[in-house]
Amino acid sequence: MITKVFGYSLATCVVSGVFGLTLIAHADSKNGATTEGSPIFGVTLPEGYRNWQFVSIAHEEGDKPDIRVILGNDIAMKAFREGTLPFPDGAIIARLAYKYETSPQNNAVFGRVQSYIAGEPTNVQIEVKDSKRYANTGGWGYGQFENGKPNPSEQIINGCFACHTKLPPATDLIFTKYSQ
Amino acid sequence: MITKVFGYSLATCVVSGVFGLTLIAHADSKNGATTEGSPIFGVTLPEGYRNWQFVSIAHEEGDKPDIRVILGNDIAMKAFREGTLPFPDGAIIARLAYKYETSPQNNAVFGRVQSYIAGEPTNVQIEVKDSKRYANTGGWGYGQFENGKPNPSEQIINGCFACHTKLPPATDLIFTKYSQ
Repeated sequence: MITKVFGYSLATCVVSGVFGLTLIAHADSKNGATTEGSPIFGVTLPEGYRNWQFVSIAHEEGDKPDIRVILGNDIAMKAFREGTLPFPDGAIIARLAYKYETSPQNNAVFGRVQSYIAGEPTNVQIEVKDSKRYANTGGWGYGQFENGKPNPSEQIINGCFACHTKLPPATDLIFTKYSQ
Repeated sequence: MITKVFGYSLATCVVSGVFGLTLIAHADSKNGATTEGSPIFGVTLPEGYRNWQFVSIAHEEGDKPDIRVILGNDIAMKAFREGTLPFPDGAIIARLAYKYETSPQNNAVFGRVQSYIAGEPTNVQIEVKDSKRYANTGGWGYGQFENGKPNPSEQIINGCFACHTKLPPATDLIFTKYSQ
């Protein structure tokens, strides 16, 4: 059992540098149990993240249009507000995405199609700053969650860093700017 | 002085039923001082509203496209989460709107124009539930704020209720649904 897990996870462990965590995550998923952490990074869905304060909002077009809010824990919010870069260890950023839908109710009030709202949740992405644990990925660990459970796809999780690392280094690999 | 204010405000006072507050707001604006409350309703910008929890998000097209977040105080959040309608007295809902802008930074990462973000703040609208004080406007009082100051336009403020009252009564005149 351990050998199989070991073999399966080795490639990504080398990339991520969080060898032990990857083992744990895959051991869980091999047993068919709900994994608590994301693959590769072992990032979990923080308790109470839905109640965190608001950083900003965005709409993404593309293959799966969504509308999204970005929330932050206290450490992240302090850094956003004070413009602290890089973000300090312990900062966690949550991105909650929803289907992008027009609102028949609102459009009826306005007399035209103009209102686009959040439909059903699609997924929640979590970024955790830990400059030592995630040293090989710019200090950030990533996780994606659907219905409260981590998406087990290593391809998706590797895609997080692959995309964020294209940002200018001065952003600390964070897309979002704080909205006043 | 009082007579002028009285004559100017009478029409809207009859509509709003918050006669004294209208007088106060206009007395301030006539003096050139910053009014603390909105016209007609006397709604003020609640301290700490920027730190309130997140209800949902939307994008409005139309003459002045914006992207917006809706936040709620504790009473409002509890009602949203429990589906309590009508909202109890003391519920306050804040709508923070921002210019709707595409993001050159994000688009460069994605390799196409697909990312729309919050630009500069446009205004903040506040709705306060007080079923007695605002009995003539469905129990809600309204205010709109730019740069922390109430917009003094009675036309704009009257437009709030005129629009919200077109919603089905079962919504308690609230556009927004809670996003999980």
